[in-house]
Amino acid sequence: MIRHTVVFTLRHPTGSPEEEAFLEAGRGLADIPGVERFERLRQVSGKNGYAWGFSMEFADRAAYDGYNEHPAHVAFVRDRWVPEVADFLEIDYVPI
Amino acid sequence: MIRHTVVFTLRHPTGSPEEEAFLEAGRGLADIPGVERFERLRQVSGKNGYAWGFSMEFADRAAYDGYNEHPAHVAFVRDRWVPEVADFLEIDYVPI
Repeated sequence: MIRHTVVFTLRHPTGSPEEEAFLEAGRGLADIPGVERFERLRQVSGKNGYAWGFSMEFADRAAYDGYNEHPAHVAFVRDRWVPEVADFLEIDYVPI
Repeated sequence: MIRHTVVFTLRHPTGSPEEEAFLEAGRGLADIPGVERFERLRQVSGKNGYAWGFSMEFADRAAYDGYNEHPAHVAFVRDRWVPEVADFLEIDYVPI
């Protein structure tokens, strides 16, 4: 299992309709084949400046690659992520 | 539910006995009251420089505070974390 996470901050004001719309659009990532245990998360630690997170799990690297290359993911990155996300960090985990 | 995560890099060489000993010592955090779903993780994304992670969940803020203040956690931070961890980032999540 590979857990893919991304913690991020949006360009939109906190509590704005644009913020809500982005997070709503993010739900669609859960429908991409191979995505398991998709979560939308609020980042609540004061020890970093990020506001939100997405987390999902893949059975293996092939499933992860399929997600990355899927047209729905490519479109989300192009149409929503790049223009609306101000800062982010990807962290991927495998249990030991 | 609050998910507390920390992604980190050790001062020890990769594959060293000291690295293994640190990760083994980390298991003890799972026994602190309030800690649920404790995981030790290998960080596998090439998009950041961290090597390892711990993840755990708390029912609420009171449980999280109890963990932070617990003598076993305080001792782990003092005796293992501070001297052996080179870099880290704490990220805490609440599902939305």
